[in-house]
Amino acid sequence: MKMIHIILYLLALLSFTSHATSSSFKDFCVANLLLPITPSGYPCKPQSLVTENDFVFSKLVPGVPIIPFNAGVTSASVTNLPGLNGLGISASRVDIGINGTVPMHIHPDATELLILVEGQVTAGFITPTKLIVKTLNPGDVMVFPKGLLHFQVNSGVGKAYAFSAYSSSNPTLHILDLLLFGNDLPTPTVEKTTLLDAEQINKLKAEARSGGIGGSGLA
Amino acid sequence: MKMIHIILYLLALLSFTSHATSSSFKDFCVANLLLPITPSGYPCKPQSLVTENDFVFSKLVPGVPIIPFNAGVTSASVTNLPGLNGLGISASRVDIGINGTVPMHIHPDATELLILVEGQVTAGFITPTKLIVKTLNPGDVMVFPKGLLHFQVNSGVGKAYAFSAYSSSNPTLHILDLLLFGNDLPTPTVEKTTLLDAEQINKLKAEARSGGIGGSGLA
Amino acid sequence: MKMIHIILYLLALLSFTSHATSSSFKDFCVANLLLPITPSGYPCKPQSLVTENDFVFSKLVPGVPIIPFNAGVTSASVTNLPGLNGLGISASRVDIGINGTVPMHIHPDATELLILVEGQVTAGFITPTKLIVKTLNPGDVMVFPKGLLHFQVNSGVGKAYAFSAYSSSNPTLHILDLLLFGNDLPTPTVEKTTLLDAEQINKLKAEARSGGIGGSGLA
Amino acid sequence: MKMIHIILYLLALLSFTSHATSSSFKDFCVANLLLPITPSGYPCKPQSLVTENDFVFSKLVPGVPIIPFNAGVTSASVTNLPGLNGLGISASRVDIGINGTVPMHIHPDATELLILVEGQVTAGFITPTKLIVKTLNPGDVMVFPKGLLHFQVNSGVGKAYAFSAYSSSNPTLHILDLLLFGNDLPTPTVEKTTLLDAEQINKLKAEARSGGIGGSGLA
Amino acid sequence: MKMIHIILYLLALLSFTSHATSSSFKDFCVANLLLPITPSGYPCKPQSLVTENDFVFSKLVPGVPIIPFNAGVTSASVTNLPGLNGLGISASRVDIGINGTVPMHIHPDATELLILVEGQVTAGFITPTKLIVKTLNPGDVMVFPKGLLHFQVNSGVGKAYAFSAYSSSNPTLHILDLLLFGNDLPTPTVEKTTLLDAEQINKLKAEARSGGIGGSGLA
Amino acid sequence: MKMIHIILYLLALLSFTSHATSSSFKDFCVANLLLPITPSGYPCKPQSLVTENDFVFSKLVPGVPIIPFNAGVTSASVTNLPGLNGLGISASRVDIGINGTVPMHIHPDATELLILVEGQVTAGFITPTKLIVKTLNPGDVMVFPKGLLHFQVNSGVGKAYAFSAYSSSNPTLHILDLLLFGNDLPTPTVEKTTLLDAEQINKLKAEARSGGIGGSGLA
Repeated sequence: MKMIHIILYLLALLSFTSHATSSSFKDFCVANLLLPITPSGYPCKPQSLVTENDFVFSKLVPGVPIIPFNAGVTSASVTNLPGLNGLGISASRVDIGINGTVPMHIHPDATELLILVEGQVTAGFITPTKLIVKTLNPGDVMVFPKGLLHFQVNSGVGKAYAFSAYSSSNPTLHILDLLLFGNDLPTPTVEKTTLLDAEQINKLKAEARSGGIGGSGLA
Repeated sequence: MKMIHIILYLLALLSFTSHATSSSFKDFCVANLLLPITPSGYPCKPQSLVTENDFVFSKLVPGVPIIPFNAGVTSASVTNLPGLNGLGISASRVDIGINGTVPMHIHPDATELLILVEGQVTAGFITPTKLIVKTLNPGDVMVFPKGLLHFQVNSGVGKAYAFSAYSSSNPTLHILDLLLFGNDLPTPTVEKTTLLDAEQINKLKAEARSGGIGGSGLA
Repeated sequence: MKMIHIILYLLALLSFTSHATSSSFKDFCVANLLLPITPSGYPCKPQSLVTENDFVFSKLVPGVPIIPFNAGVTSASVTNLPGLNGLGISASRVDIGINGTVPMHIHPDATELLILVEGQVTAGFITPTKLIVKTLNPGDVMVFPKGLLHFQVNSGVGKAYAFSAYSSSNPTLHILDLLLFGNDLPTPTVEKTTLLDAEQINKLKAEARSGGIGGSGLA
Repeated sequence: MKMIHIILYLLALLSFTSHATSSSFKDFCVANLLLPITPSGYPCKPQSLVTENDFVFSKLVPGVPIIPFNAGVTSASVTNLPGLNGLGISASRVDIGINGTVPMHIHPDATELLILVEGQVTAGFITPTKLIVKTLNPGDVMVFPKGLLHFQVNSGVGKAYAFSAYSSSNPTLHILDLLLFGNDLPTPTVEKTTLLDAEQINKLKAEARSGGIGGSGLA
Repeated sequence: MKMIHIILYLLALLSFTSHATSSSFKDFCVANLLLPITPSGYPCKPQSLVTENDFVFSKLVPGVPIIPFNAGVTSASVTNLPGLNGLGISASRVDIGINGTVPMHIHPDATELLILVEGQVTAGFITPTKLIVKTLNPGDVMVFPKGLLHFQVNSGVGKAYAFSAYSSSNPTLHILDLLLFGNDLPTPTVEKTTLLDAEQINKLKAEARSGGIGGSGLA
Repeated sequence: MKMIHIILYLLALLSFTSHATSSSFKDFCVANLLLPITPSGYPCKPQSLVTENDFVFSKLVPGVPIIPFNAGVTSASVTNLPGLNGLGISASRVDIGINGTVPMHIHPDATELLILVEGQVTAGFITPTKLIVKTLNPGDVMVFPKGLLHFQVNSGVGKAYAFSAYSSSNPTLHILDLLLFGNDLPTPTVEKTTLLDAEQINKLKAEARSGGIGGSGLA
């Protein structure tokens, strides 16, 4: 544990303690990121320490492309926009290069609402009884209901980008390939639970190990 | 009551009835807008009638400017994007012309998360103990916590536009001027409850009556 | 930071730590007001430190009248009735003197349910499409849905008083005049976002500065 | 089924159908009591049929005393104050005569917040590890957390009355005696599951049958 | 539409209408499965039509094994145990034959809590940063947090069976193979969004088409 | 306060502090049982300290029988299965010996869903307007809606056991006899609020004092 962390922590404790009488969830609750999170979000910073910067994130610029998908995501969520704490919403910018794709993924506890700004994207989500696929053009808005497997593919001739909103202050991105191949789950277990061939599994495990899946750009 | 409504209603009843056994909230609940809404949202359409179009809204184009504010809002919410039903999220495009403003307003049950795409906007919200104001540039993201009075002003030299997400499938826009001056609340009551002068109130009531406030572009 | 705060804080930490095994949200969660609040409320005091006084507030007496409105509010909420923590309810006593008024205000995240006990009150709330106004007599109960702009005016010949319940353990009172005129928001910004005249704004800003709005009785 | 019910139902359907396009949960959702309730509350009446009377209940007067407890309760909940629908709050007036009592009872899904207006009341609630009892005087406010067994006894020399708020639009009152003795649960089953003697059970069952418990005033 | 459905629907309408005054969410809300579901669940049956059978499901017996996984699931959820409506809980019995497996799957909006009764099962769930795998013996209880990809494999020498509870009245089972290969999503799209080889995809699509995945036992 | 508690507490603080940047509610929130609980649950352990054991409880074996009821309960809830934190679900094993009973009780904020595995049980719950009683056989599943008084009696010839799930991570068991007779509530108060005879009350109070009710096996 680094000394700087101890000092930061003591400062955090002192800061909320010295203002204890004004510490309350009044109208908003800016996250105190130095204290441990709870199921409802982070404890609130005292109002006296809150500034306008707690409510603004700069800037939602294009993210570093994830290998080999040629797509990048930059997020404004509670960890970099602490005013979102407890409010159940966040946003991201999604850039998909030519021929790029946001691969099959899940946000376990968030609905995604995507607004396409530039380019053409074919997107879809899947349930046991429905396959919903649609080609989107700029200005189109598509909803991906919470917890469903979904994807977005650049189906146009140029770059594409979109803004997405999420019904969570702190959503996570579960890329299917990384769940299946990016850890130590033994090949026979993957084989048995997915029906994929061992050869296929080992090939993708090797790519994941070499940084060939999610090699950069993934938090 | 128009005959067409009766027919639509009977069709609505028939449609869900004939599919009653498969009617369920499985993974999503697309709004049946012909049936009355409940506190949790609209009843669900049967899955067999759901199509990809229920999950896409085209297009989130610039809205008609509201007089005299020179700003327009177009929304993708449950009434035109029925796949949002029950998911607690929606979006809009906000266009603010040169010198334009989104006047003081409230979304009574929704947090707003604004992403500025073009131009420069000075935005803020107000609580009894805090005034939060910030000038935003493209890529900046600002959160306006639920139920707080807030505004956005074009402070740049050109047009500005933004996308906003809301933590409600069905948010409402309460423009303060229309609440205070756009109805039959007697001038003495407004005077007494706001401390505004009667002359000021009557002037703005007259503007509201003549269409000079919210003259177009407001649903 | 005062030494007494450090000592209180250390006592708070010690108190819950020494009882850690019995610290739980079992049946109720009395607020430990010395620790920072979270979006779901305050951390719970250990059950061994809980007494009957944590569940009772004495007394809900008439509040100090707010200038110039001649109305006072006393609240029983989580900060003085810590047994309310996490339960989503609180109460207040509202006294409105002769000719007095509870001015236009909002509770951003709470429904208000008012029971008139004495006197006559004309009350109302406003949405973009509805103006709801009603004159209340003793025993009448009126609901002001969450987040809506509303007011209460003494319309009788004597004093009036009421009890109000709120659907929040920790509601806030947003008096419109104080939001608009009780801070440093520049006059041109208020002008532009409200359409009020600069003269009117400056007059009310001056009154607010001199304590003429909310001069006493406001927490 | 009475013809009047059929007619009322058809009117209900027609009313919301003819206004279907404006039927929405915008800012409030007044209960349409003629349609079946859902877990989140009643479907909403169309806004065009909503009046100020939907938000006001007149009058919260003393209720008929329940035999033999000499206490009466009058409620303002969603069934007589339909504007409460979906808002999670309601209220009652509780009158306790001399020597009267509100017997041991439970509100299964509502916290109660009681404000004593007149008289003296000794009240309490019970958990497996805590007995909380307190004597209340006018202006005292006491909270009874959701789902806990509790009681209120007139411990003064005169009548007492209070207002209570509940964290539910539609709370129920479960008087313990009526749960145990006011139905057809066989005496041996009651005996085995409560350890009460059969004689005691039969005595109270007889009283309940003869109207001697909850003989009037109970909805 | 079958005549029987019309008759059932009319009966449903009549039934709740004739009891409209007693139709309410008082203490419980048994699902009226003939009316369309809402985001909060089904409308409630009138209390006068409720019987003890609405609260009991018989019997949670071993389900038909799903090909080729040699595992079967039988569920008690709101559609066959209507008393669960609005209560956010349900259960199933999971039988895993020798060498059988419950393949990689997701419950998009439900946590699963599994109690192993017989046999030995190795189970796990996966997030981007954690792989949690554990071998369970009878009496072991394991939680699979909501929305996460997970699996259960019979790792013992005999049959295994478990009971699972879910934090939803109406959970769904998303078997990964059926999402990826059991629909018309074109092979190139699957290839691009999963990095699987086309040959592998086509092989599994063929198996799914021939009933070789989920060939029986899946609702 | 024991020194070991201080050390544990300091370790707890250090542990989450040293990992502050990775401390978040990402996909799950394992309870840090050393820190005080909030209304939404315990603060989360840092992900780096989470192991598979946080998600598994061993073993849900028969509990010590409670005197004189001859029934025992073992629970897997957040305090011994910290991975349940914030997920709103838990489980127990309920063993009822020959002639045994789970006496009248309430779970104030949890629905119970019982799966009978062995034996025969007659179970029921009670509302002011409904008595629901049913005899269950192995494989039967019965729901006891949240907050309602209920019981389970062994009505077969041998032992019985069941698994129950609860819609809370941290449910409590309120045995009616212990609420009424297991504390210092004076006999006259019990008499007045329950209509039970003083003799009956004193008899059961004596049994409770001597350990004759809930003499063992109750947490």
